[in-house]
Amino acid sequence: MLTLELRARDGLARRAVVHTAHGSIETPNFMTVGTLGAVKGILPRHLLDLGAQVMLMNAFHLAWRPGEELVRKMGGLHKFCGWPEPILTDSGGFQIFSLPGLRKITDEGALFANAVDGSLRLFSPESVVDIECALAPDMAMVLDECPPYPCTPRELTGAVDRSIRWAERSWKHAVKLQGAPPGTGSQQPTAAARGTHRTPYVNFFGIVQGGFDDSARQRSLDATAAIPFPGLALGGFCVGEKIEDTHHGITFTAPKMPAGRPRYLMGMGTPEDILLAVAHGIDLFDCTIPTRNGRNGLAFTATGTVRIKNSEHAGSALPLDAHCSCYTCQNFPRAYLRHLFLAREMNAAILISLHNVAFYLQLMQDIRKAIEEGRLAAFSAEFLARWRSESQ
Amino acid sequence: MLTLELRARDGLARRAVVHTAHGSIETPNFMTVGTLGAVKGILPRHLLDLGAQVMLMNAFHLAWRPGEELVRKMGGLHKFCGWPEPILTDSGGFQIFSLPGLRKITDEGALFANAVDGSLRLFSPESVVDIECALAPDMAMVLDECPPYPCTPRELTGAVDRSIRWAERSWKHAVKLQGAPPGTGSQQPTAAARGTHRTPYVNFFGIVQGGFDDSARQRSLDATAAIPFPGLALGGFCVGEKIEDTHHGITFTAPKMPAGRPRYLMGMGTPEDILLAVAHGIDLFDCTIPTRNGRNGLAFTATGTVRIKNSEHAGSALPLDAHCSCYTCQNFPRAYLRHLFLAREMNAAILISLHNVAFYLQLMQDIRKAIEEGRLAAFSAEFLARWRSESQ
Repeated sequence: MLTLELRARDGLARRAVVHTAHGSIETPNFMTVGTLGAVKGILPRHLLDLGAQVMLMNAFHLAWRPGEELVRKMGGLHKFCGWPEPILTDSGGFQIFSLPGLRKITDEGALFANAVDGSLRLFSPESVVDIECALAPDMAMVLDECPPYPCTPRELTGAVDRSIRWAERSWKHAVKLQGAPPGTGSQQPTAAARGTHRTPYVNFFGIVQGGFDDSARQRSLDATAAIPFPGLALGGFCVGEKIEDTHHGITFTAPKMPAGRPRYLMGMGTPEDILLAVAHGIDLFDCTIPTRNGRNGLAFTATGTVRIKNSEHAGSALPLDAHCSCYTCQNFPRAYLRHLFLAREMNAAILISLHNVAFYLQLMQDIRKAIEEGRLAAFSAEFLARWRSESQ
Repeated sequence: MLTLELRARDGLARRAVVHTAHGSIETPNFMTVGTLGAVKGILPRHLLDLGAQVMLMNAFHLAWRPGEELVRKMGGLHKFCGWPEPILTDSGGFQIFSLPGLRKITDEGALFANAVDGSLRLFSPESVVDIECALAPDMAMVLDECPPYPCTPRELTGAVDRSIRWAERSWKHAVKLQGAPPGTGSQQPTAAARGTHRTPYVNFFGIVQGGFDDSARQRSLDATAAIPFPGLALGGFCVGEKIEDTHHGITFTAPKMPAGRPRYLMGMGTPEDILLAVAHGIDLFDCTIPTRNGRNGLAFTATGTVRIKNSEHAGSALPLDAHCSCYTCQNFPRAYLRHLFLAREMNAAILISLHNVAFYLQLMQDIRKAIEEGRLAAFSAEFLARWRSESQ
């Protein structure tokens, strides 16, 4: 069972520890994305070397391939993927509503055609809970409906209502399978569940939706928080809206999320996004930015992004980031990384991704320290001033 | 300057140590291939973890990209590539005669059109020595002409004659640039060379050619060995001939190569090839087999090859090789590796390549031990019996 231990506050920002069955997560923290059970180009031992404490995977993608029953037979995701630390699985709500393949959506769930083999499968609140219990992560997102952007008020209301109904169904089904969270009440798993589910307790997170309408956000928050999920997430961003609207949604909603549970901002973001969200009380983040950009030759440094293919790096003996102690920065000049990138050698993707993850994890560590010392605002201002100075 | 220290013999097989400016190489040993300065999917620190003592790169490819002058400015290949141990560069003779782009070959050299940008460049014995001195490996191959297969006796004679003339020109040019090998005579680098070349001494290896004709092999060997190269290589195999002809060429030539210098069999091979060649006195090997096969999902194990995509591995909790202590085998079940491979995740290539390199380095270590203990023949017989038992 997940618990949140608050250590310090700095304004609305929180410094906490999330305890799970597979270890603790110091927050604010960043979850590296390993959609299919692997962070592209980075092995678990590298992530551990870098101090990574939690990995995000995607239940929707894993359900298609290799299939949740295989993972269950292999002893769950931790054992299957060789990752001993906490795991959070996304439900795939975002993918269901953004990837091609959606056939039909009803209150029952979303019928989806698999891009792998074309087969049809219903993703319902209950089936997603079943999938995630088979995968056996420490934390798992329930299925939600992410409204499109732009959408009509009617569409938004419909998506919020459905997400609330789905959250209630998800929780009911999770309790049926696993019992109520230990220590929270009298509900115990059914006999059937006790007999068939040997996996550790999966901590389900509800997801606050509501698009870019404050009252819809508030309504979604109130209803989702009323369900005793061990954690709550903030979703529905990065669907095409203006960045100002994203930031308003975060600053409006995050501080109102229940203080006693972890708050997770889904799928974002840039260092700017993270600093803003942390300042408004977010604990957990995930984003493909460090690894996807790494594969595309864009490196994050204290003074901004570095586009490794730029000719100015051709003869550069400098590391990607002179302030970084990662393996890449300690051993390889930019000229070498640029050479590998232009030659399409996979080690370019590996080395730049490795650095970018190190950069993100160092940023989170610096943020935690700044909160502990009550100087988050000053840290953010300094970081952003340097960060914006030389970005390419 | 390279020296060879013989430690033990077992029949024609040798157990030795090759000392270079960047460290020692226990032989027989296998050089992992990092054509463009990187072993695909495997970082230098992994190679060091696995006990790799030497890396092979390709001067021909590096001359096109990133260019030898850039590498020289960056302080040579070791510094540029973050690899602190010995490096051997191939001259690209094999590539020149096997890749598309060859425009014209004369006694002066080979005119080649670059696949990267279409530009023309002459690869002559002298220009290749220049390139390799700029790259500054510990060992470097001279330019040779690798005859096609099949070829007429006249073509073969022409290629052998030219390779001998080119070897003599290469040596003469290397001595002009670097002086004679320290301790071998009175020749010193010219004033011009002393003024411009700051790189460590590059130990050039001559290459024995001769196709599949014993007298041509003998003639090539005699003439090449007459030049005071610090090492000699055996080349011209894997051009389409029958494996019996390859093996005859190796067993005929290897034992006759000068005993006081390292003997390097170029570009081969399978475990069978290596065991045969070691038994006939070869010290050094290189081959893309472990990494190329790793990327293609073929793993080497004590009981033969494993094709990871085969459905029998779908639910397998076994490691690739139960006898292996590498990171891949200690942490990841076959089911996971198969999943990553089918999903085209790059970590499949990384993890299987890592294991394959571990397998090859372990084989070489076992071979060295067997020679020390005078039981190479028994070791080879046992290894091959197991190896052939279950290959896929």
